[in-house]
Amino acid sequence: MQNSRSKPCSCPSLKLREVASMYFTMVAAFLVILVVALQGSVPRGSDFPYKVPLDPQGLLELSWNVSYPEQAVNFQLLIRDLQFGLLFGMSDRGEFENADLAVLWSDGHNSYFGDAWSDAKGQLHMDSQQDYQLLGARRAPEGLYLLFRRAFSTCDPKDYLIEDGTVHLIYGILEKPVHSLQAINISALHGGLQRVQLLKPNISIPELPRDMKTMEITAPDVVIPSQETTYWCYMAELPEGFPKHHIIMYEPVVTAGNEALVHHMEVFQCAAEFDSFPHYNGPCDSKMKPDRLNYCRHVLAAWAMGAQAFYYPEEAGLAFGGPGSSRYLRLEIHYHNPLVFKGRRDSSGIRLYYTATLRPYDAGIMELGLVYTPVMAIPPGEDNFILTGYCTDKCTQLALPAAGIRIFASQLHTHLAGRKVVTVLARDGREQQVVNADRHYSPHFQEIRMLKEVVAVFPGDELITTCTYNTEDRSRATVGGFGILEEMCVNYVHYYPQTQLELCKSAVDPGYLHRYFNLVNRFNDEEICMCPQVSVPQQFYSIPWNTFNRDVLKSLYSFAPISMHCNKSSAVRFPGEWEKQPLPSITERLRERIPRCPPSPEPRPAAPIPLNLGQLRR
Amino acid sequence: MQNSRSKPCSCPSLKLREVASMYFTMVAAFLVILVVALQGSVPRGSDFPYKVPLDPQGLLELSWNVSYPEQAVNFQLLIRDLQFGLLFGMSDRGEFENADLAVLWSDGHNSYFGDAWSDAKGQLHMDSQQDYQLLGARRAPEGLYLLFRRAFSTCDPKDYLIEDGTVHLIYGILEKPVHSLQAINISALHGGLQRVQLLKPNISIPELPRDMKTMEITAPDVVIPSQETTYWCYMAELPEGFPKHHIIMYEPVVTAGNEALVHHMEVFQCAAEFDSFPHYNGPCDSKMKPDRLNYCRHVLAAWAMGAQAFYYPEEAGLAFGGPGSSRYLRLEIHYHNPLVFKGRRDSSGIRLYYTATLRPYDAGIMELGLVYTPVMAIPPGEDNFILTGYCTDKCTQLALPAAGIRIFASQLHTHLAGRKVVTVLARDGREQQVVNADRHYSPHFQEIRMLKEVVAVFPGDELITTCTYNTEDRSRATVGGFGILEEMCVNYVHYYPQTQLELCKSAVDPGYLHRYFNLVNRFNDEEICMCPQVSVPQQFYSIPWNTFNRDVLKSLYSFAPISMHCNKSSAVRFPGEWEKQPLPSITERLRERIPRCPPSPEPRPAAPIPLNLGQLRR
Repeated sequence: MQNSRSKPCSCPSLKLREVASMYFTMVAAFLVILVVALQGSVPRGSDFPYKVPLDPQGLLELSWNVSYPEQAVNFQLLIRDLQFGLLFGMSDRGEFENADLAVLWSDGHNSYFGDAWSDAKGQLHMDSQQDYQLLGARRAPEGLYLLFRRAFSTCDPKDYLIEDGTVHLIYGILEKPVHSLQAINISALHGGLQRVQLLKPNISIPELPRDMKTMEITAPDVVIPSQETTYWCYMAELPEGFPKHHIIMYEPVVTAGNEALVHHMEVFQCAAEFDSFPHYNGPCDSKMKPDRLNYCRHVLAAWAMGAQAFYYPEEAGLAFGGPGSSRYLRLEIHYHNPLVFKGRRDSSGIRLYYTATLRPYDAGIMELGLVYTPVMAIPPGEDNFILTGYCTDKCTQLALPAAGIRIFASQLHTHLAGRKVVTVLARDGREQQVVNADRHYSPHFQEIRMLKEVVAVFPGDELITTCTYNTEDRSRATVGGFGILEEMCVNYVHYYPQTQLELCKSAVDPGYLHRYFNLVNRFNDEEICMCPQVSVPQQFYSIPWNTFNRDVLKSLYSFAPISMHCNKSSAVRFPGEWEKQPLPSITERLRERIPRCPPSPEPRPAAPIPLNLGQLRR
Repeated sequence: MQNSRSKPCSCPSLKLREVASMYFTMVAAFLVILVVALQGSVPRGSDFPYKVPLDPQGLLELSWNVSYPEQAVNFQLLIRDLQFGLLFGMSDRGEFENADLAVLWSDGHNSYFGDAWSDAKGQLHMDSQQDYQLLGARRAPEGLYLLFRRAFSTCDPKDYLIEDGTVHLIYGILEKPVHSLQAINISALHGGLQRVQLLKPNISIPELPRDMKTMEITAPDVVIPSQETTYWCYMAELPEGFPKHHIIMYEPVVTAGNEALVHHMEVFQCAAEFDSFPHYNGPCDSKMKPDRLNYCRHVLAAWAMGAQAFYYPEEAGLAFGGPGSSRYLRLEIHYHNPLVFKGRRDSSGIRLYYTATLRPYDAGIMELGLVYTPVMAIPPGEDNFILTGYCTDKCTQLALPAAGIRIFASQLHTHLAGRKVVTVLARDGREQQVVNADRHYSPHFQEIRMLKEVVAVFPGDELITTCTYNTEDRSRATVGGFGILEEMCVNYVHYYPQTQLELCKSAVDPGYLHRYFNLVNRFNDEEICMCPQVSVPQQFYSIPWNTFNRDVLKSLYSFAPISMHCNKSSAVRFPGEWEKQPLPSITERLRERIPRCPPSPEPRPAAPIPLNLGQLRR
């Protein structure tokens, strides 16, 4: 391949390519007909509502749809510049080891498609059960479309289980012919990962009012900095005297050509206590950015790659404008530019759809999980440490209306060590349903996600949020807090009707933590200063992290009483006794959903499917 | 059925029965031929070397063989008095819920066979995958023989995984016709359980010497007491001046007709320090039993229901006779008589095969696991509490010969709360192999089991014995000790060549346990006297068993240093420092064996197989 690159212009091969391409198209068309005849109806291109570029250049573009009745995802992969094949697949966190892969490869003469898996060393193996089901291939001017389908759950232990929440997609491009699947050297591939929510909820779109207006909060023709990561900040403002409206929908506006660069965008409303905010248009981490912009933190809208329009439920809208709310908005765009393109101009942003005809309910946002406090800490070197935050029955009893609230969307949030986040609703000590779960959560992919089902929460219910952390690369304890190397465990739930309850979070009782520090001090032979005048983080940093101290910290967190923050705003608690509260006791857990396995799996050949796509060379 | 019982002698039905029986035999014979043609060779009766009665009356008799190449068990079930069918199957601990069952049932006209499972409520369901494979049925004067086969592992989550160690077999007799499998009411069945080791090792029988003699240690025509449980003790003695011999084999001698009553038998040798022992023939728990019999505890031979002859490896024999060993032997027989038969006479016992031509090595018995001490305790209300005993590298380094020892058999031992016992061999911190594992261990079924493979142990190796306990029915802590309500965790391994090492066991360091009691005292708000003058059991009994105190005890046991008993006899330690030893650290665990699933399972019908056995009425 290096050789062929050093002779870039070889005329005979160019001709060959065109001839091959024609042949190719014919064969592919025949193949599609054949496949259609075999497999039933192939979805058309317009049937794939979700789309995401896989690579930063946008050479691979994935579209998909989800069939809940069939419990399967239909994929359409556009390969703009096919070389000798490609790998596409899924793995726990985007790694190429222990991955579940669909592979298209060519030996220079013939092409093959197969379902494969990679072992812990990255070696590829043909899967004994072929679950990436090829539906067709189609040549178009823009490239080759490959259509295939995958059941959520295949009952094959080598396969990835497609669940709600984040899915780490991986891709790799074959730049040389390979004689067999086993001959593919994964470590030498040009490849990468893309995070998406594959299982988009199947929500019917509410009817939109006639008086609906739109407002675009977009970057003013920004030159995207030629660096991998930029958070761009731009201040916008509503007209003076803009009355109260309801935002009922919003959608992304992405400048054509920048689809692979615009990673995520958020619109924040500024704090009402300031009459005015300065104009700003520049990187969010610039020293030139006015400090006051830090008071623009109330989320109005959020979008991340692969997401579509966000619709409020028909009974509710998000209030903006009117007295008591700020006119100032902050747009934040995360540009992800790993190939360091220079001079790209961008005017992306978010288009808000709003109405003056207010809907019955204002929507609200409530914080569940853990208080931002160092008393909740994770020892270093843990691969799977769990912290839990509680919204107790006592708090919901006091703060929720008798008719309850309806949670319709959720945004999970941790800092860099977060790996999983799950919120469960419990009633009378029995877990009722999952509010939102992401078992492949990434702090680099935080979306507001519509829930598949609206969750009703009533006074006396409990909301339990569990975060799982990985601190294998850290040498000292990670404490809770605001810093990027400190941790959070939060679920921002979007609900209606809005209530006064803004925060329903917990942390371990500090007195019990003090007993833990004392216990560690006495039990271990180490002579470590755990003097009470030392700060909680310093006390955590000085613990010798043997298995006993780790285990006992876990035992403490699952036993000690909690301090509840049942708050109207971050500083104002509801009246009541909130210290040394008992941990909610759960007597009945939700069952792990056992994947429905097909009653008699159709045995499919373990051999690759020859494709006869012609030679895949350029 | 009640009605038919109240008219026991109904002549027409008798005739019908005989007619049916003839028809039956013909159909069954035809069926066998048919089944043979379909399924390949049916094993003959003589091909089933293992045999056990299922019920106390011996109406159901199970024989089986094990095909390791095919990873399957072939069963032959003799039904002496077939009514309207029966259930046979396996479950975790012999319960009828969550059981895996083969069911033969009749609706009064037609008979059916099928693979079924029972749910947590005991409701029967047809299994979607039929894994009890019917091989044939044969009528004989003694009853109906049903032949069927079952793979160890079926890859069906509803099926029981047949593993090494104890298997709890269950049976139930259908006394009324049923219209469908689902109509069977398990709770109303006459049924029970029988424990067996299904996967007998496939050991080639060593050549036996010409000068081999036999000696029967049998009960002298005892009248079996008419009570459910009797341990019978009988003293026997060797001739005076009986020189050293090697026991090279032993086998059970069970009085014909008592096969279902003789549960297990052991021959113990008495302690050499007493010149004589009194004669005794009576219940072991009788007040008349001389105390000195408690000094007869050295196991010479042990047999339990379903076991066959026990052969020593050809290089080794168990020494008995000669100077320094007692002439006195104690035979102990456990009679299990749940139907309270009266006046049954029994002369069962064990036949020893011995030779004066000593083999190269004396065999020895070594105790692995936990020291009998209250410092190792199990909180009450635990369903799955694990205690671990260590034989450390330091001890084996000191006590084993450079050429190592060979373990060829093992007897696992706990008291009533024991549920699993596993011993693993580790070398350089890496687990190498399982020495013996019983994941369905029952304290009511303790056999000396030949190992499938002889395990070589070298100086520096570690032997780690893990016991799992259930104390859900107890209200206070269970401490280690000799009492039946105290616990043990022991693996008696049989090995050669004999060494001085008799005991290689551990317990937690008492100083660390003391720190635990202090910690519990300080951490909990409870005011409990944990005064140091109080005994360890009393301190355990006074702990308030909240989750924190439970968890921290587990953490303590998996962290605190140990006290090693590396002993020549129960009181004499090898020289060295054995207190406050570090816990062996295991860096590499053995992988859980993932059952080999067939590459493409033959889909079998989920419908029952009609049998046309004629009417199954009496």
